[in-house]
Amino acid sequence: MSSTDRVTAGLLVIGDEILSGRTKDVNIGATADFCTDLGIDLMEVRIVADIEDDIIAAVNALRQRYTYVFTTGGIGPTHDDITADAIAKAFGVALPINPQAREMLESRWKQAGTEVNEARLRMARIPDGADLIVNSVSAAPGFRIGNVHVMAGVPVIMRAMLEALAPTLTGGKKVLSVAIKAWVGEGSVGSQLGEIQAQYPDVKMGSYPQMGTGRPTTELVLRSSDPMRLEEAAEKVREMVNAAHEKAGVVPPQE
Amino acid sequence: MSSTDRVTAGLLVIGDEILSGRTKDVNIGATADFCTDLGIDLMEVRIVADIEDDIIAAVNALRQRYTYVFTTGGIGPTHDDITADAIAKAFGVALPINPQAREMLESRWKQAGTEVNEARLRMARIPDGADLIVNSVSAAPGFRIGNVHVMAGVPVIMRAMLEALAPTLTGGKKVLSVAIKAWVGEGSVGSQLGEIQAQYPDVKMGSYPQMGTGRPTTELVLRSSDPMRLEEAAEKVREMVNAAHEKAGVVPPQE
Repeated sequence: MSSTDRVTAGLLVIGDEILSGRTKDVNIGATADFCTDLGIDLMEVRIVADIEDDIIAAVNALRQRYTYVFTTGGIGPTHDDITADAIAKAFGVALPINPQAREMLESRWKQAGTEVNEARLRMARIPDGADLIVNSVSAAPGFRIGNVHVMAGVPVIMRAMLEALAPTLTGGKKVLSVAIKAWVGEGSVGSQLGEIQAQYPDVKMGSYPQMGTGRPTTELVLRSSDPMRLEEAAEKVREMVNAAHEKAGVVPPQE
Repeated sequence: MSSTDRVTAGLLVIGDEILSGRTKDVNIGATADFCTDLGIDLMEVRIVADIEDDIIAAVNALRQRYTYVFTTGGIGPTHDDITADAIAKAFGVALPINPQAREMLESRWKQAGTEVNEARLRMARIPDGADLIVNSVSAAPGFRIGNVHVMAGVPVIMRAMLEALAPTLTGGKKVLSVAIKAWVGEGSVGSQLGEIQAQYPDVKMGSYPQMGTGRPTTELVLRSSDPMRLEEAAEKVREMVNAAHEKAGVVPPQE
């Protein structure tokens, strides 16, 4: 992975089962972690139903806006698996059976004694001009076309595909982070945190209240790709938090 | 809740912490379940960062497209809580301190001995013309303006707000579902399921492979608001699954 200044991504999750609540998505969190590790800014996620026009509209919006687009779901063998069809239409290309994909699948099916049929061969349909993304788990490949990376929805397969494509991606500057705990509510530090944020526009500051800890607690998270600026800003935030503890008569527990 | 034919929703999740992977979202699943229970079709979810223009663009796209829009996140007391500002701009209205919201907050703060300050009072800023959504957990209210319902991001507060606004929503026809388990891979039933789907366009059929069960297993899920048609289609799917078991020499386990 080489390094440039700013690399962005959008994620498109495809599937009725996520929108109905029947399946609880875990691919968003996995993709977010994956992008952060590679210094890629995940900027937007969309979840759409198994509706061709909706998939086409979303993928076209995202691929114009971000360096990379990832999609998950809808590349299996059944009638509701229409992601490859939608992507081919979004790019205006044909969707033939890909000989290499067919070979990957038939070789796996032969091992397992699985029948080759029309439904299963749907999984070998790959848009013209796309490269395959290897699926070490169940053989049916994903694919990359333009800046769009099409992956399975089953989490274990999706993660294997992310690993397979990691070496092909160009990451941005690695973003470092510091977390500082304040034993007061976030309203007690909000105004001053906003002032420190204004002094350090290159250090992104977030404030997250903790619930159910039995006392007001706030986690302050600072992120930057510049380690010196990050530490300088973190020191100012620590001073502010110490002053807030003193003002509130709080003695932070030893951790 | 009264009933009409088709009611749709979009969800907008706001927050850098979800996109960086630091926080794993659970509000999408909770909103999906909530909508399904009320017979509301959740059609689309978007996750955007704490960037005003991105929030405005997403909320404007969703509110034109769906019956209801729900948002979560970004209504706390710190500088990165900009949802109320973005929504006010999206609707072109002012964002004054709302006397009722201020009273809710000050009454809670009085009980707890919490200081009233500028950061905390940010939470009383409500767009002109909005109704408040009561927050039984931590007092800071959400609000409804037009068809947009603005809620907190902390899951326990978000769920309390969903419950508070449920009686104000008009649901669609309750959607019923039947799950049928097939002890074969989904490629073994895909073609025929597609044929049954074509005969029953009013019954939505999904196919979901199960991983890690030690043998190929597929869950087929049928959904419809018409109980007669649902049962008729389910019977056809059961016959198809039994035939697939017979063909593969599979004896389904007693459950």
